[in-house]
Amino acid sequence: MQIKVNGLTEDIKALWREDQIVKMVDQRKLPHSFEIITLNNHQETAQAIKTMVTRGAGAVGNAAGFAMAQAALEAESKPLDEFNKYLKEAAEAIRNTRPTAANLFKAVERCLKAAEWGTVPVRVENIVKEADEIFKEDLKASEEIAKAGNKLIKDGYKILTHCNAGALAYVDHGTALAPIRQAVKDGKDVFVWVDETRPRGQGARITAWELEQEGIPYALIADNAAGYFMQRGEVDMVIVGADRIAANGDVANKIGTYEKAVVAYENKIPFWVAAPGMTFDLNTLTGADIEIEERAPEEVSMMWGLDMHGNPTTIKIAAEGTKVRNPAFDVTPAKYLNGFITEYGLLERPFDEGIRWLYGQPGLPPGFKYAGT
Amino acid sequence: MQIKVNGLTEDIKALWREDQIVKMVDQRKLPHSFEIITLNNHQETAQAIKTMVTRGAGAVGNAAGFAMAQAALEAESKPLDEFNKYLKEAAEAIRNTRPTAANLFKAVERCLKAAEWGTVPVRVENIVKEADEIFKEDLKASEEIAKAGNKLIKDGYKILTHCNAGALAYVDHGTALAPIRQAVKDGKDVFVWVDETRPRGQGARITAWELEQEGIPYALIADNAAGYFMQRGEVDMVIVGADRIAANGDVANKIGTYEKAVVAYENKIPFWVAAPGMTFDLNTLTGADIEIEERAPEEVSMMWGLDMHGNPTTIKIAAEGTKVRNPAFDVTPAKYLNGFITEYGLLERPFDEGIRWLYGQPGLPPGFKYAGT
Repeated sequence: MQIKVNGLTEDIKALWREDQIVKMVDQRKLPHSFEIITLNNHQETAQAIKTMVTRGAGAVGNAAGFAMAQAALEAESKPLDEFNKYLKEAAEAIRNTRPTAANLFKAVERCLKAAEWGTVPVRVENIVKEADEIFKEDLKASEEIAKAGNKLIKDGYKILTHCNAGALAYVDHGTALAPIRQAVKDGKDVFVWVDETRPRGQGARITAWELEQEGIPYALIADNAAGYFMQRGEVDMVIVGADRIAANGDVANKIGTYEKAVVAYENKIPFWVAAPGMTFDLNTLTGADIEIEERAPEEVSMMWGLDMHGNPTTIKIAAEGTKVRNPAFDVTPAKYLNGFITEYGLLERPFDEGIRWLYGQPGLPPGFKYAGT
Repeated sequence: MQIKVNGLTEDIKALWREDQIVKMVDQRKLPHSFEIITLNNHQETAQAIKTMVTRGAGAVGNAAGFAMAQAALEAESKPLDEFNKYLKEAAEAIRNTRPTAANLFKAVERCLKAAEWGTVPVRVENIVKEADEIFKEDLKASEEIAKAGNKLIKDGYKILTHCNAGALAYVDHGTALAPIRQAVKDGKDVFVWVDETRPRGQGARITAWELEQEGIPYALIADNAAGYFMQRGEVDMVIVGADRIAANGDVANKIGTYEKAVVAYENKIPFWVAAPGMTFDLNTLTGADIEIEERAPEEVSMMWGLDMHGNPTTIKIAAEGTKVRNPAFDVTPAKYLNGFITEYGLLERPFDEGIRWLYGQPGLPPGFKYAGT
């Protein structure tokens, strides 16, 4: 995406690899400062996933792939059995960072698979190639999602989005925001309602910032206000991203997505989930099988921002000792969705066959309306 | 309610009158400091309503009544026509503080009506009496609501509430929290899910604090998480307050109430609105006629709390210049409600006759299950 840094316009990605080093936008500091963080080894990259330096299904998937590449490069000079052991431990550490996003587990899996044969140098080369391939696929998927989703957006549409499935949640462009960017590029008059997305405020801090950077009209609202605008006919469609999509079409996404989906359904507002094939998980049969991460209570009871002097400050909102529950995701049953916006086009009902196709069955995908048609 | 201040247990009310002076808990500073503010004249009291020193339908109604009493006492030595002019202007200023709560307008109306005849001293006396009567009625209504609502609460219930319809939203006890307090007093095992209630965080700052003070088990959650717990069967009922109830049963309440009601309805979870007769407004035919207050964008883009040194601090969450929309209330259509918890008992469908009865028709109220039976 294009951002303005010190008066200059720069084209940035959410993260990238430079040999053994991974660099990423420090998303914890947005929108108040724009910083690139350098991660020197796979442990640092894993830690960056865990502490949400980067976040979003695609970005954590790519970070996981890069961390696997780092681990392989770190063990390059080891004998095969030690190399394998090192890689296996690295994979375990990376998997243990965050439990919900399918992309993360798939990236680790793909890198491990790439290291199943050959000498150590061959395995290293293949893992690095695979990590880079995930990166390229992710970029391409966002571009295709942009085109497919754009077909749903009419001139004058007001679109609600939740959390950030934008450029910073993937390598670039994003998923939910990609079609919106495309629609604006095509000259359509589009307006975006941005849910704040408590507790971590990815809407307030990242989505609003991305839209502001690109001059796309929007308004930030409290999560509580989404239903109000839906009820008044001021929301024409909802587009959100996903962290994991089960084989039956149930969607795990940022906490609050379920509420928005139910209220949209009640108001007959189309609700679309934008996600690449990497996010669909055939091994997860239904939403009930998805592990939901509960994060620290301080995410709810405290808040971070800039004080009046412009200094980064964390404040307590609730009283010391307030009891908190903090699930980070919820599951939206497939019944509330109109469909999926994928790199292969729009997937409408029935979802199950189309989702199986995303796993590589040949031929014309059932349920898909191809973006190119 | 009982609160612990400097190790002592004190019994406090949300606000009260001492001759020409009004005192109230400064709710903007909770939970980080407990302060009583002194308001010396009706202008100061009106300003305190406007700036949300006090808030909640009942508390603003009582504050409005007290402000009218202050105005009357201020004009005590004026000739009748000047007294009337002063009172009319005061009424106008008080009405202009906040547009949504029915209680506020009714309190002003009742005080004006009390001043329709007699000499100036008689009118002053009657206004003061009327303001004190509203206070007594409010207190009594909360006690009756506690008893009526308690009948709905079974042992082991987990109850979701939104915003603060607690002791500080009325004179004492509250509406939504009153039955919960009663159930706990009766030895029932009750747990409360407390919505944070962005943007102003009345759940995080006030409801959680009230429950903590009284040792009632609760957990604070992000507003986005309410649906998650409903979906998992961890919410047995929802009780909220109301700012205005239309003649057909549509309810204006804190922004987000509508979303919770729709999601509760979808999950077949009983949804009750606790409110005294003062909150019902027969002149408002349906929810569409209720004016919704939009408040300052800074409520969404900034947040207030204590920094690491314990100093009150306001921080920017979103970037400077972020566009915001901030409706403070929404309207929940009557179809999503199971009924109303009032001082006259539980009002179930059909709502309209029961609501008309609240305006003073004699005889057994239609639709009511009297709390005493």
